[in-house]
Amino acid sequence: MVDETHLASRRSWIESANGHPEFPVQNLPLAVFSTQDTAPRGGIAVGDTVLDLAAMLANNLFTGDAKRAAEAASGSRLNDFLELGSFHRKALRRQVSRILDAAGSARADVEPLRSRFVVPAADCAVHLPATIGDYTDFYAGIHHATNAGRLFRPDNPLLPNYKHMPIAYHGRSSTVGISGEPVRRPRGQRKPAGDAMPSFGPAANLDYELELGIWIGPGNRHGDPIAIAGAPDHIAGYCLLNDWSARDIQAWEAQPLGPFLAKNFATTVSPWIVTPEALAPFRAPLPARADADPTPLPYLSDAGDQASGSLDIELEVLLLTPKMKAAGMEAQRLSRTNATNLYWTPAQFVTHHSSGGCRLQSGDLFGSGTISSPTPDGFGSLLEIASGGKNPISLRSGEIRHYLADGDEVIFRAHASRDGFASIGFGECRAEILPSPV
Amino acid sequence: MVDETHLASRRSWIESANGHPEFPVQNLPLAVFSTQDTAPRGGIAVGDTVLDLAAMLANNLFTGDAKRAAEAASGSRLNDFLELGSFHRKALRRQVSRILDAAGSARADVEPLRSRFVVPAADCAVHLPATIGDYTDFYAGIHHATNAGRLFRPDNPLLPNYKHMPIAYHGRSSTVGISGEPVRRPRGQRKPAGDAMPSFGPAANLDYELELGIWIGPGNRHGDPIAIAGAPDHIAGYCLLNDWSARDIQAWEAQPLGPFLAKNFATTVSPWIVTPEALAPFRAPLPARADADPTPLPYLSDAGDQASGSLDIELEVLLLTPKMKAAGMEAQRLSRTNATNLYWTPAQFVTHHSSGGCRLQSGDLFGSGTISSPTPDGFGSLLEIASGGKNPISLRSGEIRHYLADGDEVIFRAHASRDGFASIGFGECRAEILPSPV
Repeated sequence: MVDETHLASRRSWIESANGHPEFPVQNLPLAVFSTQDTAPRGGIAVGDTVLDLAAMLANNLFTGDAKRAAEAASGSRLNDFLELGSFHRKALRRQVSRILDAAGSARADVEPLRSRFVVPAADCAVHLPATIGDYTDFYAGIHHATNAGRLFRPDNPLLPNYKHMPIAYHGRSSTVGISGEPVRRPRGQRKPAGDAMPSFGPAANLDYELELGIWIGPGNRHGDPIAIAGAPDHIAGYCLLNDWSARDIQAWEAQPLGPFLAKNFATTVSPWIVTPEALAPFRAPLPARADADPTPLPYLSDAGDQASGSLDIELEVLLLTPKMKAAGMEAQRLSRTNATNLYWTPAQFVTHHSSGGCRLQSGDLFGSGTISSPTPDGFGSLLEIASGGKNPISLRSGEIRHYLADGDEVIFRAHASRDGFASIGFGECRAEILPSPV
Repeated sequence: MVDETHLASRRSWIESANGHPEFPVQNLPLAVFSTQDTAPRGGIAVGDTVLDLAAMLANNLFTGDAKRAAEAASGSRLNDFLELGSFHRKALRRQVSRILDAAGSARADVEPLRSRFVVPAADCAVHLPATIGDYTDFYAGIHHATNAGRLFRPDNPLLPNYKHMPIAYHGRSSTVGISGEPVRRPRGQRKPAGDAMPSFGPAANLDYELELGIWIGPGNRHGDPIAIAGAPDHIAGYCLLNDWSARDIQAWEAQPLGPFLAKNFATTVSPWIVTPEALAPFRAPLPARADADPTPLPYLSDAGDQASGSLDIELEVLLLTPKMKAAGMEAQRLSRTNATNLYWTPAQFVTHHSSGGCRLQSGDLFGSGTISSPTPDGFGSLLEIASGGKNPISLRSGEIRHYLADGDEVIFRAHASRDGFASIGFGECRAEILPSPV
């Protein structure tokens, strides 16, 4: 899986790519972007620039399978590109990597055309990269599931099914938005402890949830399960995902059928689709199992090879309050954790989801479930950090938070690094909370 | 709301419409159909025939707003038509009704063109009428919720939130299929009582759920709730919906986040969209509330006028087993109930769903929740009829059923009648169970 496109020694003639903390030439994530002059279309992030794939095609920079991939990625949605799958995705990656190689033979021909297809990232707006048919949210962050479960069942936080299958529920695809779009605090029905009757109004306990997002590539036919060995072929890439949650609405509505309005007011994803190829050096062994943990049933037996298994991705949550902004302060990091805290792998998500014949389609989105470390410095939600409001956190700005306040901006970041390889990043997933409508 | 299009005295020159139990000229539901010669397109059911809207347009049979509506309904999906809303939908209904009127002035011009746009229903295949952005399943059948809750909580079957808001969960839009498409028994993980460990295999307890489906018309902007007074304007029509359920998978997976694989393997809808206009004569008062029942919060206060309130629709479930087919027997009716058993109204569904700002889009689909009567002759699922498998039912064919067997065909029908009006029907929602993949 690791090839020349991963060479740490490869540098680009796009200078900002070299040593870039997010988008070195070893990353090459895709998004849909637009500028003042161009309609939304597929692009690839390189350093502080974006490669305009349609413009590269117009300049005949691609051939063969890479050309077909670039064509599929040139429109306002990347679904066709996602549907093509890994063969074409890899071909595009190889040609783009060679085109950008500072020491490559293509440089002399291509660099002079630079102004035709290299766009400053600062001039670009980003858009939702695909039409999302269905959005599914998993619950595979075992420490989050334990922490959340403990609030309701102190002695028995994890339910008996948790270690036998990746628990999930269906979310709302129509309200998935892109990083940078503000999120309006929802109103809703809730019944605070002590109140005799429910009431309706702005959610008081608004929270974020730190998740990894998974973009589905080629789909399956309705009725045809996807076996675990082939599951990685159906994953087109990864992003950051904020599963915004209104805890007071959730507590009152969620039994017996699960979360509904507490979640469906908004979900935010980062714009860049980081491919499985870019992440190949950062594969990790299967999630740790204790001796007493059950062996997954055979249909969920992930080989844990380089195309599958876990991902060693460090994730962090930062908070920027209006007071911090006014004082010119930086955002404050609330936690740092790693995707290896997920108890189930992305391949197991795909196989379990389709095991009864459910049809997946290119552009479907999965959330991993909230990723938390075992310790509070790596908790992935305020529910956990502030113990359901019982232990509010003190910020450097002198403010305290039980939950999110209007004007707060929540920022997720993620990076993967390993000795001998260039580190790569996901870009930001951020959004500011707007007040509830009156 | 009730106008000349509802006149019981109106008869059509399409003779089969007159006295037709489903599709008299007072109904005029829409679907997407195709024939050997024509690609999928919008049509209107009249008696034993289907009106080809594209062909009617080609013959200049429509003008003004009705023409615009017919154009929006002429493609392979009706989303554009649904988005237009009630004004254009009513205009189309009025012109079609006049065109078909046996005593109308248009007859002399139009009937001679009959062969150009009237297609025998027997020659038509039907298709999913819209691209479904999101599918939401409510839980508003209070007797079903009580029966199902009693299996888990005998003394307290309804949870405290039930009478304060319409409980719902997000379902899977990619596996909604049309009546006539067989349903494959899913495999899945379950843990029967007494088993120490879960296992994976074909669902043993496969069930149907009798629901009313609701097609959403014009959508709202993300963040803008739909007030209850305007909610009916967002409903484009109704159908029958079978929320297939694998009870053994459901029992093991559904805590704490609700149903997932137990439901997402298939949902079946009837093909015809029965409009709010056709159903106007069959509006019923708001669902009955006991004195002790809470008054809904103001945001859910349905005026219960003719555009809103409940619907008096009689629904029935029939079962046709392979043995019945072999013996030439008719399908056996398992139950008969009425949509007035829903505790919440369609308008309340729309308003609650959007109350936190969730975006609805034309072509979204709601399920009402399983509709059951208070008594067993009107239970809307085998879970209730056979008491979770404890009291299997005996069929006329000499067979017994705890749950559905392979080869069983489940058929839903629905009709609305009222003195002084022509009765209308929904057509069938039916599907046969295929064996699980090996």
